[in-house]
Amino acid sequence: MLLPDWLKNYQRAQLNGDLLAGIIVAVVLVPQSMAYGMLAGLPPEVALYSSVLPLILYAIFGSSRTLAVGPVGLMSLMTGATIIELDIVHANEIVSAAHTLALLIGIILLLMRILKLGAVINFLSHPVISGFVSASAIIIALSQMKHIFGLDVPRGLPAYETLYLIITQAPQSNVVTLLIGIASLLLLWCFKSPLVNLLKKIGTTEAALQFISKSGPLFAVVFSTFAVFHLELNKQFIVPIIGHIPLGLPNMILPNLNPQLVMQLLPNALLIALIGYLESISIAKSMASQKRQKIDSNKELAALGSANIASAISGGFPVAGGFGRSMVNFSAGANSPLASVITAGLVGLTLVTLTPLFFFLPKAALAAIIILAVIPLIDTHTFKHAWNYDRTDAFSMLITFFTVLIINVETGIVAGIAMSIGLYLHRSSQPHIAIVGRVEGTEHYRNINRHTVVTDKEILALRVDENLYFANTNYLEDTIMRFVADNQFINHVVLICSSISFIDSSALESLDNILYRLKKANIQLHFAEVKGPVMDKLRTTTFLKKMGEEHIFLSTHQAISFLNTKH
Amino acid sequence: MLLPDWLKNYQRAQLNGDLLAGIIVAVVLVPQSMAYGMLAGLPPEVALYSSVLPLILYAIFGSSRTLAVGPVGLMSLMTGATIIELDIVHANEIVSAAHTLALLIGIILLLMRILKLGAVINFLSHPVISGFVSASAIIIALSQMKHIFGLDVPRGLPAYETLYLIITQAPQSNVVTLLIGIASLLLLWCFKSPLVNLLKKIGTTEAALQFISKSGPLFAVVFSTFAVFHLELNKQFIVPIIGHIPLGLPNMILPNLNPQLVMQLLPNALLIALIGYLESISIAKSMASQKRQKIDSNKELAALGSANIASAISGGFPVAGGFGRSMVNFSAGANSPLASVITAGLVGLTLVTLTPLFFFLPKAALAAIIILAVIPLIDTHTFKHAWNYDRTDAFSMLITFFTVLIINVETGIVAGIAMSIGLYLHRSSQPHIAIVGRVEGTEHYRNINRHTVVTDKEILALRVDENLYFANTNYLEDTIMRFVADNQFINHVVLICSSISFIDSSALESLDNILYRLKKANIQLHFAEVKGPVMDKLRTTTFLKKMGEEHIFLSTHQAISFLNTKH
Repeated sequence: MLLPDWLKNYQRAQLNGDLLAGIIVAVVLVPQSMAYGMLAGLPPEVALYSSVLPLILYAIFGSSRTLAVGPVGLMSLMTGATIIELDIVHANEIVSAAHTLALLIGIILLLMRILKLGAVINFLSHPVISGFVSASAIIIALSQMKHIFGLDVPRGLPAYETLYLIITQAPQSNVVTLLIGIASLLLLWCFKSPLVNLLKKIGTTEAALQFISKSGPLFAVVFSTFAVFHLELNKQFIVPIIGHIPLGLPNMILPNLNPQLVMQLLPNALLIALIGYLESISIAKSMASQKRQKIDSNKELAALGSANIASAISGGFPVAGGFGRSMVNFSAGANSPLASVITAGLVGLTLVTLTPLFFFLPKAALAAIIILAVIPLIDTHTFKHAWNYDRTDAFSMLITFFTVLIINVETGIVAGIAMSIGLYLHRSSQPHIAIVGRVEGTEHYRNINRHTVVTDKEILALRVDENLYFANTNYLEDTIMRFVADNQFINHVVLICSSISFIDSSALESLDNILYRLKKANIQLHFAEVKGPVMDKLRTTTFLKKMGEEHIFLSTHQAISFLNTKH
Repeated sequence: MLLPDWLKNYQRAQLNGDLLAGIIVAVVLVPQSMAYGMLAGLPPEVALYSSVLPLILYAIFGSSRTLAVGPVGLMSLMTGATIIELDIVHANEIVSAAHTLALLIGIILLLMRILKLGAVINFLSHPVISGFVSASAIIIALSQMKHIFGLDVPRGLPAYETLYLIITQAPQSNVVTLLIGIASLLLLWCFKSPLVNLLKKIGTTEAALQFISKSGPLFAVVFSTFAVFHLELNKQFIVPIIGHIPLGLPNMILPNLNPQLVMQLLPNALLIALIGYLESISIAKSMASQKRQKIDSNKELAALGSANIASAISGGFPVAGGFGRSMVNFSAGANSPLASVITAGLVGLTLVTLTPLFFFLPKAALAAIIILAVIPLIDTHTFKHAWNYDRTDAFSMLITFFTVLIINVETGIVAGIAMSIGLYLHRSSQPHIAIVGRVEGTEHYRNINRHTVVTDKEILALRVDENLYFANTNYLEDTIMRFVADNQFINHVVLICSSISFIDSSALESLDNILYRLKKANIQLHFAEVKGPVMDKLRTTTFLKKMGEEHIFLSTHQAISFLNTKH
């Protein structure tokens, strides 16, 4: 039988860690799933269904040992926003669209695997991701405030409108709901650090500490549900509750593949797939490097693709590796994906036995769980860092951040990518060009403005710190001509190519021009330190014949020495 | 009075050249203008109006002495395609939209001047431009075939549909029109080289040769008009003719600035402005470099912007510097923009005296003029060159070429730009990373795979041939870790930064990671040849403190020598 590697080599010693981690993650996952379902505007069972089969598929195909797959905040937010754009009202159709979206995301990830396109996420620069995640966290937190206040604010609005509506409607808040919300927030906050500190002081064992500290959401759910049920808060004070969740495992379904629906979902499916993959692989890599394990990005694409398809056909919505739960899994001592299989089993058990107990679960408690889960994602550190180190990076981050907040998540991420690429191109279109001279007593040549160097008035030695390509050839041509015009004595121009890894055909044409214009002015062009791959390509051109291969030198020092002996 | 420089320093000796060039260009411009008007689907007088005031404005503000401004093929094609998308049928509204388009283009060019955005054309790589121009030339030539055959084919179709319609409808051709078309093509072709060769043999003077060789279009117009008039071909055989052109100079008008129209025209106005500016500045630069004159791209933006606004308010359509006419102007000996002023005067004179004579001018003759004007623009040389030198460039060229042919001009240019940028990013996201060693007897370090070099098994010296930025940091990290994993003896990694001109904040984070991961494996990281600007920025970070500034060496040789003495 074709077993995954981790299962073939499974050792008895790994079981304890996996068992504990699997249980703790399940305790976190059940309430979090329902909360993320609510965030996406979907019934809680859809989110619970997404927490069974996808985990098993990832356990079989994934390369991370500790990544905890399931519903995640960002994808749930984007799923909700995508579905609301469809303008459908019937509840069945909304759920059905979520299945289709998950299927499309799964197919896109598998296609990315086949086409080996995993590297596209490299074009999401760190500041853009950080701006995007921070703004999304704010949107998610804001979107949940209505549940805390017990208000009826429409979904899918820009952040500032949501905020405005909540502030203006605050006087109409449902006070009992608000009390439940605040109590839940306080309870969850206590579990985060005050309780942990207390338990540490009284000397609780590490395993118990792990378990207790992660069970905040479970307690919030249990307490608030009991309060609503016992005091009949849903009837007496119309506190919004989760309501009926069907008992039993999901049925296998074939998602709706109506071409019109598919075309409508496709652009956002692409973005959500990208974000889901990015989030998963970043988490997986960061955990793996701490244990010197390897993450295979191809395997990750295949595993996440399969997990999403599994989610789609088992009545779920899009899934990815979640940061919070993966950390829980990792720090609770998960040794292998068996932990995830155990989690999936426990969620399945919940579905067949416990769902009726969630009937009275107030939405405000779930909202509190979401809010406390996303607040740590608001990242001011990266902004400060980028601001000090590189203003253009800080600028892309701000643009992404505000576009997400003011327009929407999809536009924000696209604007951020466009911004990063645009700034990079702008930077490389005006390369740094230095006049260099010899550092005395060495064969080393450096910028005349930064080092004490020896130069020769007949020789202009220029170092271009960039590849030559269409966007910077005009700049190079203009700069060389300007230097030459400024200095009457120059008879030789030595172009130091140590930073040039390729010369595209526009640049080659420009070099042809430079050679021609210099010749007209009785100036000889030389190259030094041309790299192997560049030289190979130049040899195929007529440019080299026009210039003469004798004007190409291995090192700057050879070029300058040769020219010095000549005159 | 504020006179342009060329006028203040005008010398009597320049007059002869300017006069001759001015007259020859006018002889070419009058029939060509009407032809380009037809190409844009506009009445001939609109094109003639575009050939008066814009020329004078360019003469005042432009920096090229010989650029011949007026209606040009590419812009006329794009103007026609833009207006047809508006779905307006009334002739007055069509003309009015053309004025608005010219005004928008003028404003965009002036804005580009103010924002100093002239450099954006650098992002149009040479192969993309070549593919775009070649495909446009084919579209223009195809679009005129219907006039040659006397067929009624709708405008604005993709090239293949136009071709298909012409072939299938060919049997219904108007035979007399076809004869006029073929005769005109033959006449124009004869003027191109057979006649010139003949005249040279019989020893005609250079000035007469210039004049005669450029007057092909004039003769085609005169002969065909006379034939139609004399034989009443328009009545007897329904040969399509130009018809009534109002006598007199244009009235000043204020273009329609209806916001809806402006918004519809804006995207294409941007592209047309870009193409017009690109065409003009390339021609101006190529002529100026032959006479060691300077082109100021800011002045060009201002001058072309003013020329388009002048065209808009004097009843014209978008204008730019035309390649063919500029060459005529240049080779006929134009010494200053006075030549253009003379041309403008002669076109004005034509408008007040000669337009009734054009009544019987057959459209087939104008079509022949356009076809012979654009055929030289089909550029196979650049493709062959790119194919041999750089396949990715050849590939962008093909994509642009076929997108223009199959979809349309606007999509083609956008696809070409996206393609060039995408390929460039792809290339720079997988930088060349070489392991280097010392070339014996020198202080020079080169790739171990290409040169016979000395290495030390404890020291890994790596040269990264690219700036470090978000798109390639993962690749760098993976590559270094792979090299280190492959070689157990390594204790020191020296990163040679000679090709690194900037490190963005994503890359800085990655370097932090690399440092951390190497330290865990007991390997020390060193930098060599860090450039001044990069070092300045690194000094502001905590990374440098973590790594230790003592691990940064001025040259690779210093780094290796130091490490060699240590162990």
